[in-house]
Amino acid sequence: MPTVDRWLLPDGIEEVLPEEAARTEAARRQLLDLFSRWGYDLVITPHIEYLESLLTGSGHDLDLQTFKMTDRMSGRMLGLRADITPQVARIDAHTLGAEGPSRLCYCGSVLHTLPRPLSTARSLIQLGAELYGDASSASDIEVISLMLETLAASRVTGVHLDLGHVGIYRGLVQAAELDETAERALFGALQRKAGDEVREITAQIEQPELAAMLSGLVDLAGDIDVLERAHELFKGAPEHILTALDELVEIARVISTRYPSVPLYFDLAELRGYYYHTGVTFAAFIPGTGQSIAQGGRYDDIGRDFGRARPATGFSTDLRLLVAWGDIEADSRNHGIWAPHSDQPGLQTRVAELRAAGERVIMALPGQLDSDAAALGCDRILRHENNGWQVGELEF
Amino acid sequence: MPTVDRWLLPDGIEEVLPEEAARTEAARRQLLDLFSRWGYDLVITPHIEYLESLLTGSGHDLDLQTFKMTDRMSGRMLGLRADITPQVARIDAHTLGAEGPSRLCYCGSVLHTLPRPLSTARSLIQLGAELYGDASSASDIEVISLMLETLAASRVTGVHLDLGHVGIYRGLVQAAELDETAERALFGALQRKAGDEVREITAQIEQPELAAMLSGLVDLAGDIDVLERAHELFKGAPEHILTALDELVEIARVISTRYPSVPLYFDLAELRGYYYHTGVTFAAFIPGTGQSIAQGGRYDDIGRDFGRARPATGFSTDLRLLVAWGDIEADSRNHGIWAPHSDQPGLQTRVAELRAAGERVIMALPGQLDSDAAALGCDRILRHENNGWQVGELEF
Repeated sequence: MPTVDRWLLPDGIEEVLPEEAARTEAARRQLLDLFSRWGYDLVITPHIEYLESLLTGSGHDLDLQTFKMTDRMSGRMLGLRADITPQVARIDAHTLGAEGPSRLCYCGSVLHTLPRPLSTARSLIQLGAELYGDASSASDIEVISLMLETLAASRVTGVHLDLGHVGIYRGLVQAAELDETAERALFGALQRKAGDEVREITAQIEQPELAAMLSGLVDLAGDIDVLERAHELFKGAPEHILTALDELVEIARVISTRYPSVPLYFDLAELRGYYYHTGVTFAAFIPGTGQSIAQGGRYDDIGRDFGRARPATGFSTDLRLLVAWGDIEADSRNHGIWAPHSDQPGLQTRVAELRAAGERVIMALPGQLDSDAAALGCDRILRHENNGWQVGELEF
Repeated sequence: MPTVDRWLLPDGIEEVLPEEAARTEAARRQLLDLFSRWGYDLVITPHIEYLESLLTGSGHDLDLQTFKMTDRMSGRMLGLRADITPQVARIDAHTLGAEGPSRLCYCGSVLHTLPRPLSTARSLIQLGAELYGDASSASDIEVISLMLETLAASRVTGVHLDLGHVGIYRGLVQAAELDETAERALFGALQRKAGDEVREITAQIEQPELAAMLSGLVDLAGDIDVLERAHELFKGAPEHILTALDELVEIARVISTRYPSVPLYFDLAELRGYYYHTGVTFAAFIPGTGQSIAQGGRYDDIGRDFGRARPATGFSTDLRLLVAWGDIEADSRNHGIWAPHSDQPGLQTRVAELRAAGERVIMALPGQLDSDAAALGCDRILRHENNGWQVGELEF
């Protein structure tokens, strides 16, 4: 059944009709309740802001994705949010100003000027959770766990988890002192897994050990043995690279113990969100789709532009994708009581009682017949009998 | 406590922090559940659309209120929704295409380029319900009842209800065959309750009975006796004016019976939404505010531009206002269990069990002390004892 009608709607912008809307609302509630049980407090961020606020801090990559308009009140440029994460970071950094760790979550629409790669959608219902104020792997582990619980609660099956760490590549590049052109070329070659190109570029590096480590990144993709091979390769690497690898090992150890059925995949040359993330990165995939269904990572520098650089880690997903790829049931709309159109005394009181008890009661309008009731999802009917208004089976 | 921080946010655009966000979410759920029990199905409409779609039909009054931007994909002009009602009307008219009456509801953010009169807000969370396909007063009565139930469920107290009917003024003006300039002047004078001006303009009308009826509108404001005075004044008026008056009488009769504690106020010269509404109009007010907290009316011509002119009546409100002026409680965030940061076996399992049972459990992060627990809303703590992990009182 086509639940999306694109009639007159711009490409990638969708309306959600009753059946799917009911499941979307059910998913929203279940997942926000899940976040609440994990201690994450809901915040509601504005749909529009001054453009410079939206694109400050971690938001600067969003420029091309952000719809822009002029504010009639201030004459300044406004943007329509394309990502909620930077807004929540501002709330943590500036508005709430908690001393210790804080946990926030959100659910709301975001819009993109163009669809993201492998997607046609420009309107998403972004749902996510963020943990601020703690730099340890314990936070990354909590956030990855909550992401996997979110997928499990949505009954998304066959999930596998990709893990990476942008600190390893970043540390190596800094140590190698590559110039900007060479670094950009190396970054591109790594993303394309172009081994020959990578070796060509790293051959320019003066220290042969660093060259070998950088060119070795191409092959550091696969299952858990990647981590052993990485230990081998990074012997003698700068301290912070070994620290980064240790973080990844620790996260993989705990997650594989807690979620033994979720296959882990490692890719140390994967640099998704490189200019945004600062530590471990992760993404959940399901077979047969090239698009991740949920993703996140550590982004410790967020909040600096709002006056407070706090450690931060979090994940986000698209509620519409969870509803499409998962299996969330809404309260059935196929139960209900049909009430006749009547002025007879007691009817309104009885209807009010039934609704207060949680029943769905649809009042007939003038000219409607009892035979219309089933099409409106009613399975019972209110009839006036000797002893007042009684609920009975709907017979047709 | 200031729950709204305007730092760096445009005037009238607000973010909602945890305490208020929790109450807003609770209100959203309670009210959408109420609508569902009345048979209203949720739809989710797009935040942006082609401008001509948004301003079609009943939306044409929204032009100045609508933020506009260019679509990079189509090159066409897009608008940010300033009202959800016209979008839902399109879903009824075009997408769903039901034969009989249909009931739809919605809840979502709308944005205005400028604040509405008596308000400073430019971002609202519009919540509303619409009933399509039935032209009888039964539908208006249902929608007004649902509006009053919405306010009652939000614990908004002291509500009084204003009732009007644009069909009376419209019918009189048409019968009087005033030219456009005179009609516009009359409309303005009536809105200002400028009796002398009204008499001056109506003096030009050839039929003295119609002139008397139009100038008499100024005085038709007050409690229920307005309706008797209107019957007096409109003796001999065109048939459809008497029909309009009868509708108002019937609606007032039923609503005052069902909701005897809600004072009714009538104003037959009140033409709020005149170019939009076609029949009865209504608005709920609370003492001490000039701004209505919920409002609606009949707008039968809606949907014509989408290929199907269906009778329609509905109401809308602002969830933020209901939360501010009502008294909705959220699930308390002052209950929770503090779990230590520990690798000891069984802890994760116990935490998962407690969360599955609906408990809020916050995991300590490295370096956090038990003394941090109370500030995070925890009233209990998980301790490892001889017989495993036990929940105990938090003592400080």
